[in-house]
Amino acid sequence: MREENRRFALAERPQGLIDDNTYDLETDPVPEIGEGEALVRVRWISVDPTNRTWIGEEPTYLPPVQIGETMRALGLGEVVASNHERYPVGALVNGLTGWQDYTVASDSNPLMVVPDSAKAAPPASLLGILGMTGCTAYFGMLEIGEPKEGDTVVVSAAAGAVGSVAGQLAKLKGARVVGIAGGPEKCAWVIDELGFDAAVDYKADDWRQQLKDATPDGIDVDFENVGGEIMDAVFARLNIGARVALCGLISGYNAEDGRPAGPASFGNLLIKRVKLQGFIILDYYDRFGEAIRQLSEWMGEGKIKSEQTVVEGFENLPHALNMLFKGENKGKLVVKLD
Amino acid sequence: MREENRRFALAERPQGLIDDNTYDLETDPVPEIGEGEALVRVRWISVDPTNRTWIGEEPTYLPPVQIGETMRALGLGEVVASNHERYPVGALVNGLTGWQDYTVASDSNPLMVVPDSAKAAPPASLLGILGMTGCTAYFGMLEIGEPKEGDTVVVSAAAGAVGSVAGQLAKLKGARVVGIAGGPEKCAWVIDELGFDAAVDYKADDWRQQLKDATPDGIDVDFENVGGEIMDAVFARLNIGARVALCGLISGYNAEDGRPAGPASFGNLLIKRVKLQGFIILDYYDRFGEAIRQLSEWMGEGKIKSEQTVVEGFENLPHALNMLFKGENKGKLVVKLD
Repeated sequence: MREENRRFALAERPQGLIDDNTYDLETDPVPEIGEGEALVRVRWISVDPTNRTWIGEEPTYLPPVQIGETMRALGLGEVVASNHERYPVGALVNGLTGWQDYTVASDSNPLMVVPDSAKAAPPASLLGILGMTGCTAYFGMLEIGEPKEGDTVVVSAAAGAVGSVAGQLAKLKGARVVGIAGGPEKCAWVIDELGFDAAVDYKADDWRQQLKDATPDGIDVDFENVGGEIMDAVFARLNIGARVALCGLISGYNAEDGRPAGPASFGNLLIKRVKLQGFIILDYYDRFGEAIRQLSEWMGEGKIKSEQTVVEGFENLPHALNMLFKGENKGKLVVKLD
Repeated sequence: MREENRRFALAERPQGLIDDNTYDLETDPVPEIGEGEALVRVRWISVDPTNRTWIGEEPTYLPPVQIGETMRALGLGEVVASNHERYPVGALVNGLTGWQDYTVASDSNPLMVVPDSAKAAPPASLLGILGMTGCTAYFGMLEIGEPKEGDTVVVSAAAGAVGSVAGQLAKLKGARVVGIAGGPEKCAWVIDELGFDAAVDYKADDWRQQLKDATPDGIDVDFENVGGEIMDAVFARLNIGARVALCGLISGYNAEDGRPAGPASFGNLLIKRVKLQGFIILDYYDRFGEAIRQLSEWMGEGKIKSEQTVVEGFENLPHALNMLFKGENKGKLVVKLD
């Protein structure tokens, strides 16, 4: 058992991508637990674009991480000592563990106990397709996007954790699915492995033309993860009655001036009578069970696939977060702690 | 009876506001009607912001008016000769008459016959609160905005035809209503005459501060008519779960480069889980009867008021259209033909 608790504490708010000055690596004693508490050894950390929004100046849907505080993140851990009956020793737990080796679960800092039926799943899946990631794709695509047979659905960040699942769900509903991803390898992957109908390489000079060619009948659903000029181009091609599931705007999360330009094609939302709905997955917390059961079933039947990129080693957490914004992951990005 | 048909034909597509070169005033013979046709003398023309969008290069929700074609517009007229039983001589008819003295109604160019029960209403009301204008406010506010008791509702272009009605409907539902209008006189009018709770004068240097002061608890509903930097400031103050009824973007309709900037605060739609719905009132055509009955009832009970600005004289039609964008009207703007 590791005798110290390493943790990354926020040292300064970054401008643009995080760098060596963003976090301090601190080493503290392992926490001692009191009555009603359980000690959790964190094993896996989920790396999500939204993490970057939590260290800006402005509150988002959660308060900003404060200077000196441990970086907030979802993770998966194991109960190693316990004074709380809900958290027996050996239980797997899932929740906001932060970037650290140990956390303390209690009624005031609750974690979700992974049910026995799910313990056989790979840990990366529990943080990915069978966790918040899968739930985000599920509710965003099926309840907001509402793809129908014959619809053209565009998914940005299509090779990412959420996008790769969201696109597969739209395929299950009979839609034509176009993924936007960075580079020929990812574009080939979403078509060949995930079954998308077409892909647009946003790193190619002719990406606008590729988008037109891939959506000859316009766009009925935009599952929006990226924002910026790609979203602008997608908005310009929306059909009458289209839906936009506004899930993320990662192109702006590292903006240095904090005021990314809005979409110049905004007016098309009016002309085409578009419904746009912003959503944060925590609002669906009460319904996670339903989503995870359905996703498990589809995975078991081979109807959807899950992919992950695993980075090894605690000290690589900050680097892993930047990987998301450089497009260096495929599917769910997780860090396995040593 | 006027022996000629004056009409304004589109001569060139304007850059910015329309000017003397935009239309040619043509004089043609009065049309002769054939079997299944009725001759309509146009008496009143409805002047609406959307008219400006119909003479741009790009198709909107209707094809652009072509060069040489009569300017498209809603109007109210009287049947003066008829070979169609649906259009008896003396009937009042309402629909796309265009900027001309006469039009021909037929099965292929249908107009709506005003029911006897509504004939007593002032003509400006039939084009305004009891016409498309009222329907726009009704469906946009009540079905998209869905104001609830205690909500803060912001209406831009609040002294305009649609905004003035939309704000009153939100008041009927128990919301706190803030109107954005140009100049102290209009601001006083929406409060004193229409019963709004507060107003923001967008022509004042401190309009941003006025908006903050008028919405201390943030904004739950934005009935959006204007776009541009005002919409951007409103979006930045939206609360969790807010609704945006996207009705118009008049600040951009005269944009010279055709690409107005999108809202920089777009990201707040995500963080605050906002539902935005663009709408065009023609999509609610089947339900106009329901809206007009309800609006008539509320008017009869003195619960909502209607205001109009009347411009006299056919030749003033182009000038009247510009008045909308200079904020020179209060309530519904109509032109009474001579």
